[in-house]
Amino acid sequence: MAKIKVGIVGGTGYAGVELLRLLALHPGVTLQVITSRSESGLLVQDMFPNLRGYLNIEFSEPDVSALKQCDLVFFSTPNGIAMKMVPELIEAGVKVIDLAADFRIKDIKVWEKWYGMKHACPDYVEQAVYGLPEVNREAIKGARLIANPGCYPTAVQLGFLPLLENKLIKTDFLVADCKSGVSGAGRGANVATLLCEASESFKSYGVPGHRHLPEIKQCLESFSSDDKIDITFTPHLVPMIRGIHATLYGKITSDSVNVADLQTLFEKKYALEPFVDVLPAGSHPETRTVKGSNLCRIAIHQPQGSDTIVILSVIDNLVKGAAGQAVQNMNIAFGLDEKSGLNIVPLMP
Amino acid sequence: MAKIKVGIVGGTGYAGVELLRLLALHPGVTLQVITSRSESGLLVQDMFPNLRGYLNIEFSEPDVSALKQCDLVFFSTPNGIAMKMVPELIEAGVKVIDLAADFRIKDIKVWEKWYGMKHACPDYVEQAVYGLPEVNREAIKGARLIANPGCYPTAVQLGFLPLLENKLIKTDFLVADCKSGVSGAGRGANVATLLCEASESFKSYGVPGHRHLPEIKQCLESFSSDDKIDITFTPHLVPMIRGIHATLYGKITSDSVNVADLQTLFEKKYALEPFVDVLPAGSHPETRTVKGSNLCRIAIHQPQGSDTIVILSVIDNLVKGAAGQAVQNMNIAFGLDEKSGLNIVPLMP
Amino acid sequence: MAKIKVGIVGGTGYAGVELLRLLALHPGVTLQVITSRSESGLLVQDMFPNLRGYLNIEFSEPDVSALKQCDLVFFSTPNGIAMKMVPELIEAGVKVIDLAADFRIKDIKVWEKWYGMKHACPDYVEQAVYGLPEVNREAIKGARLIANPGCYPTAVQLGFLPLLENKLIKTDFLVADCKSGVSGAGRGANVATLLCEASESFKSYGVPGHRHLPEIKQCLESFSSDDKIDITFTPHLVPMIRGIHATLYGKITSDSVNVADLQTLFEKKYALEPFVDVLPAGSHPETRTVKGSNLCRIAIHQPQGSDTIVILSVIDNLVKGAAGQAVQNMNIAFGLDEKSGLNIVPLMP
Amino acid sequence: MAKIKVGIVGGTGYAGVELLRLLALHPGVTLQVITSRSESGLLVQDMFPNLRGYLNIEFSEPDVSALKQCDLVFFSTPNGIAMKMVPELIEAGVKVIDLAADFRIKDIKVWEKWYGMKHACPDYVEQAVYGLPEVNREAIKGARLIANPGCYPTAVQLGFLPLLENKLIKTDFLVADCKSGVSGAGRGANVATLLCEASESFKSYGVPGHRHLPEIKQCLESFSSDDKIDITFTPHLVPMIRGIHATLYGKITSDSVNVADLQTLFEKKYALEPFVDVLPAGSHPETRTVKGSNLCRIAIHQPQGSDTIVILSVIDNLVKGAAGQAVQNMNIAFGLDEKSGLNIVPLMP
Repeated sequence: MAKIKVGIVGGTGYAGVELLRLLALHPGVTLQVITSRSESGLLVQDMFPNLRGYLNIEFSEPDVSALKQCDLVFFSTPNGIAMKMVPELIEAGVKVIDLAADFRIKDIKVWEKWYGMKHACPDYVEQAVYGLPEVNREAIKGARLIANPGCYPTAVQLGFLPLLENKLIKTDFLVADCKSGVSGAGRGANVATLLCEASESFKSYGVPGHRHLPEIKQCLESFSSDDKIDITFTPHLVPMIRGIHATLYGKITSDSVNVADLQTLFEKKYALEPFVDVLPAGSHPETRTVKGSNLCRIAIHQPQGSDTIVILSVIDNLVKGAAGQAVQNMNIAFGLDEKSGLNIVPLMP
Repeated sequence: MAKIKVGIVGGTGYAGVELLRLLALHPGVTLQVITSRSESGLLVQDMFPNLRGYLNIEFSEPDVSALKQCDLVFFSTPNGIAMKMVPELIEAGVKVIDLAADFRIKDIKVWEKWYGMKHACPDYVEQAVYGLPEVNREAIKGARLIANPGCYPTAVQLGFLPLLENKLIKTDFLVADCKSGVSGAGRGANVATLLCEASESFKSYGVPGHRHLPEIKQCLESFSSDDKIDITFTPHLVPMIRGIHATLYGKITSDSVNVADLQTLFEKKYALEPFVDVLPAGSHPETRTVKGSNLCRIAIHQPQGSDTIVILSVIDNLVKGAAGQAVQNMNIAFGLDEKSGLNIVPLMP
Repeated sequence: MAKIKVGIVGGTGYAGVELLRLLALHPGVTLQVITSRSESGLLVQDMFPNLRGYLNIEFSEPDVSALKQCDLVFFSTPNGIAMKMVPELIEAGVKVIDLAADFRIKDIKVWEKWYGMKHACPDYVEQAVYGLPEVNREAIKGARLIANPGCYPTAVQLGFLPLLENKLIKTDFLVADCKSGVSGAGRGANVATLLCEASESFKSYGVPGHRHLPEIKQCLESFSSDDKIDITFTPHLVPMIRGIHATLYGKITSDSVNVADLQTLFEKKYALEPFVDVLPAGSHPETRTVKGSNLCRIAIHQPQGSDTIVILSVIDNLVKGAAGQAVQNMNIAFGLDEKSGLNIVPLMP
Repeated sequence: MAKIKVGIVGGTGYAGVELLRLLALHPGVTLQVITSRSESGLLVQDMFPNLRGYLNIEFSEPDVSALKQCDLVFFSTPNGIAMKMVPELIEAGVKVIDLAADFRIKDIKVWEKWYGMKHACPDYVEQAVYGLPEVNREAIKGARLIANPGCYPTAVQLGFLPLLENKLIKTDFLVADCKSGVSGAGRGANVATLLCEASESFKSYGVPGHRHLPEIKQCLESFSSDDKIDITFTPHLVPMIRGIHATLYGKITSDSVNVADLQTLFEKKYALEPFVDVLPAGSHPETRTVKGSNLCRIAIHQPQGSDTIVILSVIDNLVKGAAGQAVQNMNIAFGLDEKSGLNIVPLMP
């Protein structure tokens, strides 16, 4: 089979270098072009020396005509960039996977409020497929435009999904207490994410409101028969590079539910999923057990036999939370083996 | 005034070395004796070289007669040790502050269930004063036996206290999602807390049940008019040395409550407390801002104007969560300035 | 081609889990047996959850008859174990790669002095091939018994080799100031390598003498025409999991040597080596650029145009410094592509 | 005694916040003014929340007339700022301690080459006293202008001083292999010092030449009777916040020197020094044993009885390497107890 000709717009951030790591060894892909206005002319390996010997390509000026020669373009750009270029690429028959948030929120007004800008192509939002394969695999197969999910929303959805779609959990008071490694904050020069500021410390941020909240709400509501889900989402910054840990809380809807049933439910739900691993009863997943891989590992608890359920869900924010899920979506959209290029044993220790 | 003659039993763990750090510079104290069965004969500074030049004392065999010469004995031992020696010391007129859990839980059956042993002196549990100064200052003044609070319970109580005592929060579904630095797990040789296991990772532990849960419940119930509080407590391990961050969730009891009122309430409640700092509205406390100090810093949020309140409470688990609070209790019990020996600017960065 | 039937003795340490990570995806290998006296009966994935879904094998009791069914046995054991089992395996026609030090030092007396025990099979030391492919590739091809090099010696040798074999550096005062991540200290329960002891700190250790010194001397002397090399080797512990950085110092033998010539020399020397990457002039290699990979990256400096040369050499201690080099040796010894199973892009960030 | 009226210029970097931490509790000091062009009007505690409750002052616009009201002004500014303001302050009778490098190098041409700018007041360089108390205590007592030493030079000098002044070490090939925590790189927004770039990695930097080299050479040459010292200085970045570890190498000048004599020599040399601690023979100092304190801890080794001496010297780069040494210099210059405000037990763990 001919290799997929891939272009990348952006790619100088952490999701970008992770995408390059995965594509460099992907057997079904040729990287044709990678554009960056600021780094044009620089060899990719001079910015990311881990890629020395694996990639020999330089950043080039953004150029739509070059991107149109691709079968697929990934956008690994700040929010608000992809929406300006996507229509032209889609019309030219190029598939697009956007790792940013431009096409994730169906309600344009909500998007514009949280992202603080006017949307450039609302029509494309409508046709975009939300790229969570565990929910939308069939739609992804035929998609032209895929909105790659946010990192927190991925971990939260995979944890709540079996409970909500089976009406096992009350929707009036859910809590998603989430913790992310610092790479989630990006590769920009920023005092707050210096080693001397962010290591040996722990804090929350965005408690009054974080952009992943509307994405989480939209998705959870789509799983549920309830019109409205009341969820409190609190992100925290963990002094480590990679990993997200979502600790999810809710009340069961019926006293007859017990944790053994839930364990079985989760195991069945995800039995055929290549990248969701339901741990044995009683487990506490560690983020390091998914480091560098596309896996989500989940455990289910019912502390003290009470009516509160606690779900623990971990991913690598740069892989299942970004670049790996994007590759998974590409594999599905192009009819490749879904695990192609993603057959990676997590690096531990 | 004559200096307080102090003895320490144990002192080879992290709470122990922290207690030594604080006492070494405390103007009102003389360290008379420090006992350790395993390290008898070793100079303290040879185990803890940060103390070189500040302390010149060696560990000695546990010896009740030597301890009886003290005005005050701190127990910085594993659970179940203090209860065997305390009656004799108390009867000899020595005051005792136990940094372990032997005297924290009033219900002996509950204690015995969670700690997995028979209690050696239930009568002393009854007379022990729970050493959270913000709640029990007056009782501490006259106490002979002080049960120094656990680290998690300290952070959780100071966060929930103003809400519960004013009936502003529903008691049927509270969540305390707590995160601790690794020093909370102690100085024992243990694979799980090796740098290579615990760094660059994040996990929960003890989700089915953690010993601090009954302590938290007992205390929160004492603040509330409700008989029973339903709280889910989830501890997590943060890849850093020191610090606890408690993220506390609850529903307000009345729609008329708003975050500005709560801000005022907290500020008033803690205005005269030397070691509780209510941050300005909208703040996100970082654990590093209390590192090495006895402070608890608190922020109050009401995300999206919903009926959920989120309280953020940070302490240094080894100071306000252990040794510092013990010194604070000593100061109160002996009529010293409460801040004596605790006037420390947190080390940042 | 039939897959190589592989056995592992030990494998519960960090080199062991790394070997398992590499072998799990190696296309030419079947893992037949892994033995561990202490963990017999435990599923490997229950000790190392990163391997869930990639390996389905349990630790078994050490059993020479089972090991004799293998084509190759790796020893990933403490020093002194392999030497007791190797003769029987070799006589049975099994190839052996020892990741420990039992067969590295040719001078038995020296070995016995540094390792504090009597050697069980000196004859086998003689026939063992020291498994540094960049030096001994041909001998490795036919070897029955391969002594896999130490981590520090690998980084030091690859840095000094081109200088010594070309007599460009004086042998009377070499310095190897080396720094290792904490995984080099192993997975044993040990206070000194707890996160709370080893993070946020830096120290040297073994300055009076470290076991890798005689290995380094033996090897460097074999590269040189001088009988005796005077080298000071100082290992240090870096608060990170993986990585070795060797900073190597020596005086040039002739004023006519300059750094540009050395750059060319190194580039030519290693041009065909699949796992040695000579960086562009002026570079400072970071250990993270080889994390998880079998690469050694090297840079050459001549500060201030003086007669001192500074070589910077980095590896991942668990890969090129242990398990990866063992797989490389296996590939060579069995006639596979030398990069088989080692085609891994370093994980960064 | 009247308190010293202190002003600070700069103070928004890591040396600045450390100076504020020390001065906040210094019994002999009043902080009158702190200037910062960029942060004027901001409360200091809003930038550095560890200072909440300890300092109530805001940054103000740089204003020489306000600074002239002070007895002493600290410059905690980038290089090249102090030299523009110092003459006017000195002429007004204000003492100055410059934490930057403007007055450290006596040879103006050398300074201008390394710092890349023209010096604004060469005359003041001549009269400036280099503020290493262990060398220049008497001169500091009467100094009007004190050049506070660099962090690396402090650790290197204290290690080499006893050897050089006693001619015990050859000066033709010294090596100072130095390692610093990331705070040494400052608080500026910079990709290279982000947690995701600098943690879990180790690298050298500035191997071709670092600004602290001429400072080190000037000082070592002043200790020695040799005209010229040949030293190779290699700085490295350690993935931790605080601490410098200098590993120093040299050849002894006579075979009759042994490590026991050197141990005695160092102990005598530093016996009365309040902030230099010579460790027992055979020790390996850890940077964490000086964290937050003004101490330098030193150990002396002669590996394998060879003619190479290895000195290990650790400091906290922000304290003895910057702010603490500045306070020590202030105490000396104003006739206070040299330990005033510096009586701090290192924070460990």
